[in-house]
Amino acid sequence: MISSVAYIAMHTSPLIQPGIGNAGGMNVYLDRLSRTMAASNVDVTVFTRRSESESDTVTEVMPGYRVVQIETGPAERISLTEMRLYAAEFAREVEKWIRSHGRTYDLVHSHYWLSGRCGVRLKDALGIPLANSFHTLGKVKDATRGTDEPLSSSHRLLTEQEVIERSDCVIASTPYEFDDLLEHYGASPERLCVSPPGVDHSVFSPGSRSDAKTKLGFGDERIILFAGRIQSHKGTDLAVRSFGKIPAILADDTGPTTLHIIGGASGPDGEAELARCHISAERLGVADRIRYFEPVPHSSLADHYRASEVVIVPSRSESFGLVAAEAQACGIPVVAANAGGLPYVINASESGLLVDDHDPQAFASAIAAILEHGSFAERLGQGGVAYSQKFSWHTTTMRLLELYEGITSQP
Amino acid sequence: MISSVAYIAMHTSPLIQPGIGNAGGMNVYLDRLSRTMAASNVDVTVFTRRSESESDTVTEVMPGYRVVQIETGPAERISLTEMRLYAAEFAREVEKWIRSHGRTYDLVHSHYWLSGRCGVRLKDALGIPLANSFHTLGKVKDATRGTDEPLSSSHRLLTEQEVIERSDCVIASTPYEFDDLLEHYGASPERLCVSPPGVDHSVFSPGSRSDAKTKLGFGDERIILFAGRIQSHKGTDLAVRSFGKIPAILADDTGPTTLHIIGGASGPDGEAELARCHISAERLGVADRIRYFEPVPHSSLADHYRASEVVIVPSRSESFGLVAAEAQACGIPVVAANAGGLPYVINASESGLLVDDHDPQAFASAIAAILEHGSFAERLGQGGVAYSQKFSWHTTTMRLLELYEGITSQP
Repeated sequence: MISSVAYIAMHTSPLIQPGIGNAGGMNVYLDRLSRTMAASNVDVTVFTRRSESESDTVTEVMPGYRVVQIETGPAERISLTEMRLYAAEFAREVEKWIRSHGRTYDLVHSHYWLSGRCGVRLKDALGIPLANSFHTLGKVKDATRGTDEPLSSSHRLLTEQEVIERSDCVIASTPYEFDDLLEHYGASPERLCVSPPGVDHSVFSPGSRSDAKTKLGFGDERIILFAGRIQSHKGTDLAVRSFGKIPAILADDTGPTTLHIIGGASGPDGEAELARCHISAERLGVADRIRYFEPVPHSSLADHYRASEVVIVPSRSESFGLVAAEAQACGIPVVAANAGGLPYVINASESGLLVDDHDPQAFASAIAAILEHGSFAERLGQGGVAYSQKFSWHTTTMRLLELYEGITSQP
Repeated sequence: MISSVAYIAMHTSPLIQPGIGNAGGMNVYLDRLSRTMAASNVDVTVFTRRSESESDTVTEVMPGYRVVQIETGPAERISLTEMRLYAAEFAREVEKWIRSHGRTYDLVHSHYWLSGRCGVRLKDALGIPLANSFHTLGKVKDATRGTDEPLSSSHRLLTEQEVIERSDCVIASTPYEFDDLLEHYGASPERLCVSPPGVDHSVFSPGSRSDAKTKLGFGDERIILFAGRIQSHKGTDLAVRSFGKIPAILADDTGPTTLHIIGGASGPDGEAELARCHISAERLGVADRIRYFEPVPHSSLADHYRASEVVIVPSRSESFGLVAAEAQACGIPVVAANAGGLPYVINASESGLLVDDHDPQAFASAIAAILEHGSFAERLGQGGVAYSQKFSWHTTTMRLLELYEGITSQP
């Protein structure tokens, strides 16, 4: 029986609003998973680097789930490049905190490569098994990188390799990541497994489009939604260029459309990507039909999904693609790149459409098909609600507990 | 109730052995489908172009299923490029044959773009609905074409567009082809549907590896199998280059491996692809570990699968990928390109592995993981047998009959 687990997430805290800086789907993942684990009587401690000077060291989120912020490096938001300078110190400090507080854990589960070395240290120092989830893999990101995105450092790639070799279990989000781990890192298949994230169906559920629009103060225009950090890896500019190609396809009587972009510029090419969006919008004459929104809390995000006709996920790669899963849970058709784990998250042609080659024309055609054919859009929406049941935090938690049991019971 | 249907397959006859010339998975498709239709009391006539002077005009394959060979152009095998010169004449001759024999059909179902125009003609002339299966789409093939492969003619692309617009139902093999039809051809989603081909489980079933090896006269070496026409679109040379990278990955004690290639050079770049295979094999020092086989009949193909450790499907695109489905039905793990319909045919990381970007190193790693980890290979094999139940000719036939009913009952 697993009674307590240490989660390591150096670079991002589950307490932070996703959609900005380094905070994305992984924050949601950690927070929801920790809550469901705690509700299943597994005590969870999430260790993260302190990035705000005013925050408490220990935050008790709910009984059995706390976040511990470890003082390493400046107590402010810093880039991932800078953060790796503090990774070794972070690992030492986490170990010190655990020892000084006399805590014990059945296992450590580290998240993202940056936390992997801390995971390995705790495995060795405390004699407990290690599970690691990469969420994103350097080699995969490199193979699909966009304009201005730097290649992964060899430090990252070597760390990933080491963590894969030392982990008792490497957890892939989808079968596609499983295959990447085998093929690009030569991981041993016996120590690989798949456990996808979940969707919070109490928040993301179908609802009235017009109610959602009224609540958010939107007008009659039909909305196409991009939700995610603004960076070339997420394909934000591709969303704009695809949007710009829709008017030429749509019949005149389908009414005006608006592109909503929810999220902040993020990562080394975030600002450049935002500039590209503005330039593309001007060039295609659609600048006045695009609205930018700051990241919004979950409950409001669900309304944004419900207010939209289509959610577009044009990422270059995506280890899972939580936005696609959430939109489906709200009954909104998804048009996504056929990349990374997205073909696993989307039930092709039943809950959404997959587009090859990051081709804006093909994205535009797919979006137009949904806008023009109401009955088709409805079928996809219903298909999404049905398919999204595949992803729930309860299922994820049960699956992870099974994996945890497996690695802790090994001789 | 559907009682009789005309299948149009100008360029390839279900009577011909697949794996050579223009004959591939589509021949298998037509033959198995027609047999199952006939067994379900639907009378099937397949119209094809006569390509052998000595053959009969009408071949009664079984009660309720016949092949009619229409004399158009030279009675010999000709290229697809030459064949399109005869497409209009073929359509006229099919109509003439039907009228002169006083036959009636509830609908016409044409296969491949070349037959599409004949389908449109029969729809108009006989006043019956039209279904079309493209099997391969020009725009998709162009987007993924290999060295020396010519672009599709504008004649082909325009014909495809016309056939899509005129068909009462366009049948995609997989959800991926459905999406391609929407995005690249602007097809109306209401007239699109998905019906995958089946697998003949009475032929393709698990069996003893050593028995199969003995039957085929093979020795102890572990076999990696490529089955398909030799052409760059099928990735034959990629199979050779991937095979050449395996020795550097494998531990020495896993024993020698052999690559078997079953199939003949085909299409405009078939001979060039075969030459590339020989050059790659020499360069990588594995020429003496590759064996080439002429296409073999189905029953023998099943033994070839059973004799193999892994079946590799490195195609650039594949509207379905029958070889992958057949290998799975025999319980053999598949390593396939993450392209076209293959992620639908393969249950990623459960029945086989999907490899991105046609990267020989990644193919080699995936194959090596299977060769080195017996328990993993076994799990994939069992996963394949289970998953392949999804594809059967009975299911395909029932699904198509449902679609046929839908379009014949429209006002």
